[in-house]
Amino acid sequence: MEAAQAIARPAPSIAALLELAGPDMASVDALIRAHMDSPVPVIPALADHLIAGSAKRLRPLLTVGAARLAGARNDACLKLAAAVEFIHTATLLHDDVVDSSELRRGRVAAHLIWGAPSSVLVGDFLFARAFELMVSAGSMPALEVLARASRVISEGEVLQLTRSHDLDLTQEVYIEIIGAKTAELFAAAAEAGAISAGAEPERCRALRQFGRDLGLAFQLVDDALDYSGDAGTLGKNAGDDFREGKVTLPLLYAMARTGAAERDFWVRTVDRREQVEGDFERARALMAETRALDDTLALAGRYADTAKAALADFPSSSWRPALEELADFAVRRRA
Amino acid sequence: MEAAQAIARPAPSIAALLELAGPDMASVDALIRAHMDSPVPVIPALADHLIAGSAKRLRPLLTVGAARLAGARNDACLKLAAAVEFIHTATLLHDDVVDSSELRRGRVAAHLIWGAPSSVLVGDFLFARAFELMVSAGSMPALEVLARASRVISEGEVLQLTRSHDLDLTQEVYIEIIGAKTAELFAAAAEAGAISAGAEPERCRALRQFGRDLGLAFQLVDDALDYSGDAGTLGKNAGDDFREGKVTLPLLYAMARTGAAERDFWVRTVDRREQVEGDFERARALMAETRALDDTLALAGRYADTAKAALADFPSSSWRPALEELADFAVRRRA
Repeated sequence: MEAAQAIARPAPSIAALLELAGPDMASVDALIRAHMDSPVPVIPALADHLIAGSAKRLRPLLTVGAARLAGARNDACLKLAAAVEFIHTATLLHDDVVDSSELRRGRVAAHLIWGAPSSVLVGDFLFARAFELMVSAGSMPALEVLARASRVISEGEVLQLTRSHDLDLTQEVYIEIIGAKTAELFAAAAEAGAISAGAEPERCRALRQFGRDLGLAFQLVDDALDYSGDAGTLGKNAGDDFREGKVTLPLLYAMARTGAAERDFWVRTVDRREQVEGDFERARALMAETRALDDTLALAGRYADTAKAALADFPSSSWRPALEELADFAVRRRA
Repeated sequence: MEAAQAIARPAPSIAALLELAGPDMASVDALIRAHMDSPVPVIPALADHLIAGSAKRLRPLLTVGAARLAGARNDACLKLAAAVEFIHTATLLHDDVVDSSELRRGRVAAHLIWGAPSSVLVGDFLFARAFELMVSAGSMPALEVLARASRVISEGEVLQLTRSHDLDLTQEVYIEIIGAKTAELFAAAAEAGAISAGAEPERCRALRQFGRDLGLAFQLVDDALDYSGDAGTLGKNAGDDFREGKVTLPLLYAMARTGAAERDFWVRTVDRREQVEGDFERARALMAETRALDDTLALAGRYADTAKAALADFPSSSWRPALEELADFAVRRRA
């Protein structure tokens, strides 16, 4: 019965949300294009390399969706949405330098084409542009939320950098890291949208909660996909986290559950990062054996549920089911 | 007679300005300390390494001085001054990564101690903190000025990165580069101070002009000191620009004036950066011969003069001569 239902129900998608938000997102896109321009030629070229690679624009979509669900009747959310995408793109550029990543959004990472210095500086450019856009949006409370988010993201990145090879990392600190480096921008994107709509504080808090839990679900699935996905659909190399010795929840579960028997394997591959052919496959096998990926996805599912619950008191416009489906999509996506 | 006068007149200093601004700068310092804190331990350690190394705090001093000259009676300028120092420190951290510099403010560059990734991310942290401080200062027009400055700085840095090894760089593009990467923050620091004081637009423009020309003078002297200073007083290695093949005005003058005779020397050392023992000394000798440093300093002096002229219409409080002396100090300093 349950299996039949699962077959009957179509996979969650963001198609409905994208259709609802279509005109808004076209305006956001135009703002993004206009504001990544610069008389210095490397800047638009490098920015375009990343921004054109982003098909989903999830974070600005969240700003627009939150604003519209909260009853926004004007376009104040659009500049904030473009600013959110710029903050996100800036952090991606800096992340790829920090992690020496090779692929991003299905393309060769920008620092491998233009060099790390250009990636650092164009990240700074996009970050500053984000604040110029926020200024022109004119809402100091929204600016406050996004400035704080930018700071929290950098703290999360540093925390990850200094703690992420630590085999004794607790699940609590892991959630703190992904809460800061990923969920904070989702939370701020939704909250800023609500603020720009002139929503009541309670509604702003609810949309912030929706964004945060959605972000946690999104990152947990990302971390699972790094062990189960393939580069073709992922837009980045599967196994990157393992190769970098980055401790994520799937790894924490697998290490805890394989206990002393595999301790030497994890110490060598993750802590000392001395990896040989076949190590990644063995890690994947241990994860399957210990249900590490299933349980990571199950936790993501619980965050998606609390995200949806945060929307319960909003009027059931067409935006609400579309945003609820976004939460389900975050968990069920394959890339 | 002129020589006797030169002996009688004491060298310009910022002592008077520092005394006038003493209580304000102590408050700025406390704000800086409070806001560089973070629960992530690397962040305050790395930020302190740079911020403690800054003795002069010229840029926040400019914000405070501009605000007070413009008649500020409240402390709205202090948070903006702290934000200005954070923006500056963030750009230094990223610059040192971009240039692979070894020394900064008389200390080993942060990226050599904590690694380039931490320097990039802590730069991002300080940049975001600057915007949080600006939000709490509550002036959208001041925020606009500093957001735009942050963007212009990054454009200047990219322009420098892509053009600075170009032997055919024109003096015009060189001024454009230093106008963006250095003078823009001086200009914005002074303008933001004036705005926070509630000054008339004309006064804000005059103080912006003062800051900009002061910044140009300051950078021209910096570029001259890179050929004439020594590491002990400079706080960075003399000859860094030459070793990196960075084309600055002293080099442009020397290259233009030595003509075809030395073209091979400049192409080898600057364009191809194939340098051998004694090349830096030869470059210095060619600069002395062509008066390249003298003329760079003379141009700096002219910018200091136009900076001072911009203050002409302000009431002659004790702040005005102190700021005028700052312009003279920028040109006559030895480090």
